[in-house]
Amino acid sequence: MSIFTEMESNVQCYANSFPVTFNRAQGAHLYTDTGEQYLDFLAGAGSLNYGHNHPELKKALVDYIMEDGVTHGLDMHTQAKAEFLSTLQSVILKPRSLSYKAQFTGPTGANAVEAALKLARKVTGRTNIISFTNGFHGVTLGAVAATGNQHHRGGASIPLSGVTRMPYCGYYGYNADTIKMIDKQLSDPSSGVDAPAAFIVETVQGEGGLNVATNEWLQGLQALAKKHGALLIVDDIQAGCGRTGTFFSFEESGIQPDIITLSKSLSGFGLPLAIVLLKPELDEWAPGEHNGTFRGNNHAFITAATALKEYWSDTQFEKEIAEKASIVREYFQTVADELGVTHARVKGRGMMQGIEFRNGEIADRITAKAFKNNLVIETAGNQGQIVKCFCPLTISKTDLKQGLDILLSAISAEFNTELKLAS
Amino acid sequence: MSIFTEMESNVQCYANSFPVTFNRAQGAHLYTDTGEQYLDFLAGAGSLNYGHNHPELKKALVDYIMEDGVTHGLDMHTQAKAEFLSTLQSVILKPRSLSYKAQFTGPTGANAVEAALKLARKVTGRTNIISFTNGFHGVTLGAVAATGNQHHRGGASIPLSGVTRMPYCGYYGYNADTIKMIDKQLSDPSSGVDAPAAFIVETVQGEGGLNVATNEWLQGLQALAKKHGALLIVDDIQAGCGRTGTFFSFEESGIQPDIITLSKSLSGFGLPLAIVLLKPELDEWAPGEHNGTFRGNNHAFITAATALKEYWSDTQFEKEIAEKASIVREYFQTVADELGVTHARVKGRGMMQGIEFRNGEIADRITAKAFKNNLVIETAGNQGQIVKCFCPLTISKTDLKQGLDILLSAISAEFNTELKLAS
Amino acid sequence: MSIFTEMESNVQCYANSFPVTFNRAQGAHLYTDTGEQYLDFLAGAGSLNYGHNHPELKKALVDYIMEDGVTHGLDMHTQAKAEFLSTLQSVILKPRSLSYKAQFTGPTGANAVEAALKLARKVTGRTNIISFTNGFHGVTLGAVAATGNQHHRGGASIPLSGVTRMPYCGYYGYNADTIKMIDKQLSDPSSGVDAPAAFIVETVQGEGGLNVATNEWLQGLQALAKKHGALLIVDDIQAGCGRTGTFFSFEESGIQPDIITLSKSLSGFGLPLAIVLLKPELDEWAPGEHNGTFRGNNHAFITAATALKEYWSDTQFEKEIAEKASIVREYFQTVADELGVTHARVKGRGMMQGIEFRNGEIADRITAKAFKNNLVIETAGNQGQIVKCFCPLTISKTDLKQGLDILLSAISAEFNTELKLAS
Amino acid sequence: MSIFTEMESNVQCYANSFPVTFNRAQGAHLYTDTGEQYLDFLAGAGSLNYGHNHPELKKALVDYIMEDGVTHGLDMHTQAKAEFLSTLQSVILKPRSLSYKAQFTGPTGANAVEAALKLARKVTGRTNIISFTNGFHGVTLGAVAATGNQHHRGGASIPLSGVTRMPYCGYYGYNADTIKMIDKQLSDPSSGVDAPAAFIVETVQGEGGLNVATNEWLQGLQALAKKHGALLIVDDIQAGCGRTGTFFSFEESGIQPDIITLSKSLSGFGLPLAIVLLKPELDEWAPGEHNGTFRGNNHAFITAATALKEYWSDTQFEKEIAEKASIVREYFQTVADELGVTHARVKGRGMMQGIEFRNGEIADRITAKAFKNNLVIETAGNQGQIVKCFCPLTISKTDLKQGLDILLSAISAEFNTELKLAS
Repeated sequence: MSIFTEMESNVQCYANSFPVTFNRAQGAHLYTDTGEQYLDFLAGAGSLNYGHNHPELKKALVDYIMEDGVTHGLDMHTQAKAEFLSTLQSVILKPRSLSYKAQFTGPTGANAVEAALKLARKVTGRTNIISFTNGFHGVTLGAVAATGNQHHRGGASIPLSGVTRMPYCGYYGYNADTIKMIDKQLSDPSSGVDAPAAFIVETVQGEGGLNVATNEWLQGLQALAKKHGALLIVDDIQAGCGRTGTFFSFEESGIQPDIITLSKSLSGFGLPLAIVLLKPELDEWAPGEHNGTFRGNNHAFITAATALKEYWSDTQFEKEIAEKASIVREYFQTVADELGVTHARVKGRGMMQGIEFRNGEIADRITAKAFKNNLVIETAGNQGQIVKCFCPLTISKTDLKQGLDILLSAISAEFNTELKLAS
Repeated sequence: MSIFTEMESNVQCYANSFPVTFNRAQGAHLYTDTGEQYLDFLAGAGSLNYGHNHPELKKALVDYIMEDGVTHGLDMHTQAKAEFLSTLQSVILKPRSLSYKAQFTGPTGANAVEAALKLARKVTGRTNIISFTNGFHGVTLGAVAATGNQHHRGGASIPLSGVTRMPYCGYYGYNADTIKMIDKQLSDPSSGVDAPAAFIVETVQGEGGLNVATNEWLQGLQALAKKHGALLIVDDIQAGCGRTGTFFSFEESGIQPDIITLSKSLSGFGLPLAIVLLKPELDEWAPGEHNGTFRGNNHAFITAATALKEYWSDTQFEKEIAEKASIVREYFQTVADELGVTHARVKGRGMMQGIEFRNGEIADRITAKAFKNNLVIETAGNQGQIVKCFCPLTISKTDLKQGLDILLSAISAEFNTELKLAS
Repeated sequence: MSIFTEMESNVQCYANSFPVTFNRAQGAHLYTDTGEQYLDFLAGAGSLNYGHNHPELKKALVDYIMEDGVTHGLDMHTQAKAEFLSTLQSVILKPRSLSYKAQFTGPTGANAVEAALKLARKVTGRTNIISFTNGFHGVTLGAVAATGNQHHRGGASIPLSGVTRMPYCGYYGYNADTIKMIDKQLSDPSSGVDAPAAFIVETVQGEGGLNVATNEWLQGLQALAKKHGALLIVDDIQAGCGRTGTFFSFEESGIQPDIITLSKSLSGFGLPLAIVLLKPELDEWAPGEHNGTFRGNNHAFITAATALKEYWSDTQFEKEIAEKASIVREYFQTVADELGVTHARVKGRGMMQGIEFRNGEIADRITAKAFKNNLVIETAGNQGQIVKCFCPLTISKTDLKQGLDILLSAISAEFNTELKLAS
Repeated sequence: MSIFTEMESNVQCYANSFPVTFNRAQGAHLYTDTGEQYLDFLAGAGSLNYGHNHPELKKALVDYIMEDGVTHGLDMHTQAKAEFLSTLQSVILKPRSLSYKAQFTGPTGANAVEAALKLARKVTGRTNIISFTNGFHGVTLGAVAATGNQHHRGGASIPLSGVTRMPYCGYYGYNADTIKMIDKQLSDPSSGVDAPAAFIVETVQGEGGLNVATNEWLQGLQALAKKHGALLIVDDIQAGCGRTGTFFSFEESGIQPDIITLSKSLSGFGLPLAIVLLKPELDEWAPGEHNGTFRGNNHAFITAATALKEYWSDTQFEKEIAEKASIVREYFQTVADELGVTHARVKGRGMMQGIEFRNGEIADRITAKAFKNNLVIETAGNQGQIVKCFCPLTISKTDLKQGLDILLSAISAEFNTELKLAS
């Protein structure tokens, strides 16, 4: 019996899909303790946008440690934090004409979401939060109330409150104007929907099924929030940090959220880090009102600052992502075209794309087969029916195509057909 | 204007007390960017029991990084995790005849508490949690409901529910038997206190004022939980990992909690890590029911395993802690004796001791003066009226005495007297 | 200063619209202490379907009192209760092939709703209740959570929970299939809408604006409830007891709700009485689990039984209601046709009809003017924009036409036009 | 099968204890449909303080009905209401130097409690309500949260929130100062007890076991409420209207609650009626914010006004109650003295007294035996272990003694002894 079987709780999940023990990782590759190499199309569920153990980040981190840089300093001022904040300001915010203050929360996405919801409630004096069908925002009690997934909601074993659910962009088909529906309810003093403190939304729903909000919808949501005195929170934990092609996932839409949550790939190295960006005028926090022991993870500051400088100082990286996204789209569109819309649909945008199959069993068989061919890839969606490509953004085109070819083979096997790219 | 003033939210708190910028740290010392040296009696609020950048842990971590060890692997199996679990089993659990499974939660104490409360509710089918006056368990919505502090509770900006508050050991004086009081309420079908899923308790309340539960009280609480079909959760996030003198803070009492939460000093290096230990028969989790991106912080596994082997393989470290705790007690008792009980009282046990002054203003002036003399030390308690000594457990006796001397001077200045040790 | 000004709370509302003191009432007429006569088109907000002090009911009641019939017997067996139950069974339920048990709750509609929601939660083991936009179900904490009106919701001064709001029939226009929308959310395991214990619905929303659910929609809702393991509760407190033309408002649709709440006109005399009708297999109540001092109002049993026998033993009364409803419709349609759809729309069905004006100010001026001409009539709707005709069902056609003529005059004055019936 | 078995829900409870059908009642007597006479020591659970069908009240009511007095007028002004308010002012409030406004709520005690809690939350802007161990305040969702009884709390099938439970006077024995305990928790900013909007308390806990709050405790509670900015609500629904010897149960203590709830015997005739009395400066209600169809039960106004004039215009009635209370005390003390304190204890005060036996089974056997001898009497207490004497206050001394003799016989039989009065 392995130590995992003996000691680790059943709550563990990914190890069920990938029953090997990894010990090394570099770039887009994972290596097991027996030397087996895997291509990583999961990438820490979007936490490794720059790949595993990126050499520049690794160097910066090791140097920092070797010099006895502060590792843990609660939320005290450190040079590492100053460096991170300055870089965030100069590399990300200023060039995008954005003005935000940063709150370091406990280093998990859920904690950032909890802080964002608290702040919205405090600032507006309202308690209701509007979240969306298929949204995922974490599993602590405040966050899971905003999360749609029954599996996670049920885990709370207590009724969840303080959140009203509204249909996401396209939920009732793209002909149904969900912004108008929400507006009707909020404008109606007897609809039963209490005036919201905030809307919390993902521009692309990661866990919920790679559902994409259109730019018009996001603009409509921003206008709606303003009209009804609510804040707009973009939860960019999974879609942010370049995953959709730009640093923030909402850049293309032109909206300026009141609050943004970031985590996952923010540290760039897979280290725990989370922040809440808030418009300066919303900073009504009292000192320590939302606290936490690890809200200043200095190792993560070091790698985060290095990553921002390395990848976001110019537009080169955005172009690369766009090219790779096209490759993914080409592969996936081929699958969809060949299998037909009743069997496969392309979902998502940027490097956050997937193929929706008819059910979770199909998707599971495909990812299992891919894993046998040394590709780590997972499913998403309300039925687990979507196979999603979440490789590092820094992956080489060769590796990307190799991975997609493995996936294509697995899908071909499932459908007893031979899929291949047109070109 | 510094980057902190420009960019960081008001929610930041420790930097207000210690308005300098640190950049290096080693053992019990912090160093500012201008080269100033401070003795650290705060130690990451108990997250740095082995001091800053401990050489052995640092070496293990750097070696791991240099070899491209997996940094982030979601909750997949890694060698680093296997090593940590095996060490936890062989060094900590087996020698103490304890049997637990480990759940890796998001790497914050609050997340571990949220998971523990969920599990207790799920296993018992009850929703009520009993927590105690002056308890602190974190600030996410589920955790802060169990936390006593109004400042943090108010931050939620929404009524908190699902928790019933009971008086802690000694809350009404040591003559009042609070276990009996709680038993009466739970045995009375019309008391209005719903049958609890669990009690969550700290054996020494860190933030709440270094209040100490007696062994008898803890045993009584365990019996009470059993009698009423509730689980006993010991939140050992601050008091655990050796802070009170033994690895778990409850060892002396002989109780065996159903669930234990650990975080803070668990990684040994100040890295974010949190686990829930649960009796094997309670492991009713479904895979992924409580999840989170950073629940497998492999860097932390490496340093944690190293720390456990380094310090807990024999009883040497426990003896050292006991000796240092005596030194602290001697100093603090001197202060209490000299100033008299109306002015100063000794609180806490082990290396989790403090002096309670009449109010927070006195305590603040003392810590401010100590900081001027290069000692970083903080307050605790419901009015911030307690100056607490939270230095690394690995501090040298010389440094310990130096820090206590600085503190003594600061107290002397506040009271216009000259305090000194009897010896 | 009157005793009302001196002693009665501001919470009082109808007296603001009708600032006179009534002392006598008979049939469709109210009389003030100065002998002024008013035609009553409000009728206790639907509690006086058989008019004021109906002679037969009055005789039965006075006889009962004179013979020292039990007035108050908690929920003990009394002959009056037996008589009521037998009559309900033989006159109402059996002829409609309906099988229900009766629970006497505290004698208010809200109390019946509270009991219905509790029972649904108990039987299903679920906590979520689905209620509808513009629904009104009372203002106690459990009931007001299901109520849409912000004015009443806000009165709770505490966030309301346990209820999910869905769009009512036609809420997004009659082209939008709200049943399908709800089905999509309930069928989607990550929609964020928890599986419901019950739907609670009015077939015609009284306070909410005389919105009418179609028979197809009600049938769809019944099917939906069944599909998703939820109970269907019809709140027939205002629409029941003949107001829409049949005893239960849902008869035409052919549905058989799992639970029905009745109150208002149930006693027939304006006396407080409320019951919950539940399918026999749902009767999982433990004795006394939902209790209340006045749940056996024997005076009301006497008048209720008399009213049922008097009016519902044959179909004569239903025909009369239909005729009067046609008269109302003719008047209101004339108004709508003359003023045009942008100014006036007919709402409701049966003797639960109204005219929707563009805003509440217009409606208020019209009812105020009508009152000056000795017609008591009120508004409804989310903006108070609907003038509703709620006269006794037993009103003579002459009185009905007289009242409608007064209303027509008031509307004419408001719009500077002269409205009159085509005939 | 009787119509009750066929048609009435299991939720019915008293009929289980008293399985006969009553049809007439006069004074302290109930009569079955077979002509059997019972002495009524239950009296509508305190709703029939003036007995059944009191001749003066009956006359006033019948006269009113015969003259077509308004029965139902929503909350509009009626002469009956004016008469009631004037009488309340002149007979009750003025002579006691009390100044309150009256809010007519739905005619149940629970509805009055819901309104009182809402108002307290609205006025203070706080959400927490403090209620007491063994308190009973009704079973609607807002009220049952304040109620202690698990049977009723469990009926909600949803976690109850917004209420903090504190120990009642004497709960931990009369040596434990529960006011001081509460004060400590409220004065401690990290106790975890949120600042309360109000305390809601019964001066004698009826359902909870005839527990008596001392005058000093009530005064202490009033001072505590003031100190902490909370309102003091006395729920006088059962203990008020003369049951303890004075009109309000708190008169002897000299306190002046901010809010008082009254119902049960307020109408004097067993008719549904409930009011909230609030200090004029608290009247922040918006019109209609708390509403309800039957909040103006004019029949009840008529009997209530008559009862107040009849019984409370001078002190004669108070003297009578005191004499009868002495008789009850003499009987009960005899029982307690004879059986010894381990078997029987006297509880309560005024005409709200009972004998506590060791468990509910004993008490049930005694009341069952009493019922066989034509005495209707019930139990109370958290285990149903108390036999309570709740006869009409107007009972003749002969009837009172006869009932007590029947009870004595039943107790004697249970204990195989022969109890008799000393005299």
